[in-house]
Amino acid sequence: MTTLIDDLKQGNIPAFIPEIAEEEGCGSEVLVQNILDGYTVICRNRLHSFDPIAIGRGTGIKINANIGTAPTQCDFDNEIRKVRIAIDAGADTLMDLSIAGDISGFRRKIMEECNITLGTVPIYEVMSRTDASGGLKPEDMNIDSFLRVMEKQAEEGVDFMTIHAGLRKEHIPLTEKRVLGVVSRGGSLMLRWMRYHGKESFLYEHFDEILAIAREYDICMSLGDGLRPGCTADANDAAQFGELECIGELVQRCKTANVQVMVEGPGHVPLHLIEENIRKQKEICGGVPFYVLGPLVMDYAAGYDHIAGAVGGALAAWFGADFLCYVTPAEHLRLPSAEDVREGVIASKIAARAADLARKRPGEIQRNLEISLARKSFDWKKQEKLAIDPEKFRNTLEKAENSQRKDSRHPCSMCGEWCAIRHSHPE
Amino acid sequence: MTTLIDDLKQGNIPAFIPEIAEEEGCGSEVLVQNILDGYTVICRNRLHSFDPIAIGRGTGIKINANIGTAPTQCDFDNEIRKVRIAIDAGADTLMDLSIAGDISGFRRKIMEECNITLGTVPIYEVMSRTDASGGLKPEDMNIDSFLRVMEKQAEEGVDFMTIHAGLRKEHIPLTEKRVLGVVSRGGSLMLRWMRYHGKESFLYEHFDEILAIAREYDICMSLGDGLRPGCTADANDAAQFGELECIGELVQRCKTANVQVMVEGPGHVPLHLIEENIRKQKEICGGVPFYVLGPLVMDYAAGYDHIAGAVGGALAAWFGADFLCYVTPAEHLRLPSAEDVREGVIASKIAARAADLARKRPGEIQRNLEISLARKSFDWKKQEKLAIDPEKFRNTLEKAENSQRKDSRHPCSMCGEWCAIRHSHPE
Repeated sequence: MTTLIDDLKQGNIPAFIPEIAEEEGCGSEVLVQNILDGYTVICRNRLHSFDPIAIGRGTGIKINANIGTAPTQCDFDNEIRKVRIAIDAGADTLMDLSIAGDISGFRRKIMEECNITLGTVPIYEVMSRTDASGGLKPEDMNIDSFLRVMEKQAEEGVDFMTIHAGLRKEHIPLTEKRVLGVVSRGGSLMLRWMRYHGKESFLYEHFDEILAIAREYDICMSLGDGLRPGCTADANDAAQFGELECIGELVQRCKTANVQVMVEGPGHVPLHLIEENIRKQKEICGGVPFYVLGPLVMDYAAGYDHIAGAVGGALAAWFGADFLCYVTPAEHLRLPSAEDVREGVIASKIAARAADLARKRPGEIQRNLEISLARKSFDWKKQEKLAIDPEKFRNTLEKAENSQRKDSRHPCSMCGEWCAIRHSHPE
Repeated sequence: MTTLIDDLKQGNIPAFIPEIAEEEGCGSEVLVQNILDGYTVICRNRLHSFDPIAIGRGTGIKINANIGTAPTQCDFDNEIRKVRIAIDAGADTLMDLSIAGDISGFRRKIMEECNITLGTVPIYEVMSRTDASGGLKPEDMNIDSFLRVMEKQAEEGVDFMTIHAGLRKEHIPLTEKRVLGVVSRGGSLMLRWMRYHGKESFLYEHFDEILAIAREYDICMSLGDGLRPGCTADANDAAQFGELECIGELVQRCKTANVQVMVEGPGHVPLHLIEENIRKQKEICGGVPFYVLGPLVMDYAAGYDHIAGAVGGALAAWFGADFLCYVTPAEHLRLPSAEDVREGVIASKIAARAADLARKRPGEIQRNLEISLARKSFDWKKQEKLAIDPEKFRNTLEKAENSQRKDSRHPCSMCGEWCAIRHSHPE
């Protein structure tokens, strides 16, 4: 079986390439070259029939929403509702992080409900299976159970998978100097396994076998940052950059295998360290797409972490990150509700679109221009249509208890007769 | 009568100086020198007895919340409720932008209710008085009515006042090239006045008389940017920077008169133009404090402009802005509700604190460190105490339908048994 990279190298251009190039306004040849160079990925399992999207150079910033069951909240219908809300709000991809219930059945349901790019973190399902004998035991995991789960998920059509293979035994002492140790779930499982067995990571040791499955199903590798900083004090530290060096090596191995790859990033990073963080990733990893979680620019915004994440995400994307994992207002506190999911996606979308504008993407310049002209001409219907969330726009406007709403030229109640735009028009 | 600058020049140090220096951790001598150099201001009308704050170099980023009546929403009790909410949520200063009802009476009520730094835009009240003969007439304003209102507000104890004296006749043609013209209310009134009369701005022409009142009551001038860009396409344009040159000249005149001064800024500015915007202001205006509205990094986030404003505000403050005017979710749509006010203040606070952290303010580093250590040790009470909004933190946590909340070590439902922090602790 050939991967997308194999095909492109042989000059076989799938039909979705010109479609994506058209959508992104970048030209098919450029898109193909960027994919061949590793700067851009199209996550698409060969068994998954859908309209894929591109992530990386020359394309708009993309947004991922995480959903999934947990032992304390295992309600498929509720999760499916979140899936719909995330997509409605503008998520480009979904990651199913389920760790409870019939994980496989739930994933099939997601695939039926929503036909967009789907990612997973296979080690979660591996871990959930160690539970049979009562209690989760990270030390019971092994490469065989990992590869079995990975292959099963691959057969189900998963398009990209987070693999924490860059976190090695040698990094453990570095984590012990940290304020907050390890906060990545996958990272902490591998850390515990390595500590218990006193051995090198089975994900790192058997990376070729992992790559073989990725090749077979044409899955995009998303190299997880098990050592992402969990607080701003740990940002850009020796542990994070140590793992990043190893991830850089794994990126090369993916490229050699003609398997598409992206790299995951932090986490908690203060404003002044975001540029260095992105620059390092791009250098060490040969410019492959960078998929960041947040980053959160402070540690104590719980309840509003979608805003702290939008600040960091906008900056990260402007400096070169390509793909933003949403952060919801529930971060650090509980699993997100459906409403949290919506708020999280919209906040990430603001970050993504602000960065697209700063990167001077023509479509983005156009949309900002159009709503500004609609504002000038008091065209509220057009403003609503162009707003980031037309429903919220309409509802907020309608709530205005405003006598002047009867006047179609001035439905907003902010200034009424005092409208600056009106006064400044030459008459 | 002497101003604070006069006093400091004569070596008379008011009691509030060491108190503020202690609070800001900057030392009295440094604070005094920064005030004398114009880098820092303390807005405090000589008739206003309260504990003032400092804005500018060497101090934490401050946040302003706007409140005020409007013809369509003229309910004193509701506005006072907003005042309380804004202060509870962490606003450092208030601006009363009332344009309807007994404006003066309402301001006295605010002063009684809340004893913090209060700012106004006198031209609003000047304008509201042109209404007697039916209909607002910007062309009926004049310097006498302006000075009368300014003096009355000064007598009431207003600490800082926005004066749009930098917008001159020569700038009018520059505004006509814009996508969205003039969106500042004060700016648009002056523009209309100048167009109607074909004369130079009476605020500019009579700036010495304005300064005389400022000196008498020791009011801090806040030079308004009548030409702030109302859309990202107009950011950093000839109109904005043209007015800024004139504002730079007025800054010097304030300094010569020993009157404290700060400068107001945009508005809508895309990410990649924020640094230039701040740098220019600091250069042209001799480093006096920069008071920015947002800035909003995109034009179509109405309903979520507090988030677009937090992104821009964090960046602006990191690059050197000193004072952030909040933006609420109601921006561009209607007057803010009490809840909008709260959301707006918190979003600005996230921007301010993120910038303080990036500027390496010791107190900020400490607070982030403390909550991270509390997170590590599962000390939820301490996390709540340190959170940006303890009430929201508590409520969000309580809503988690989590069986594990009974276990005091793991009240959060995000990961439960899968807690990374737990797994990564060496056991």
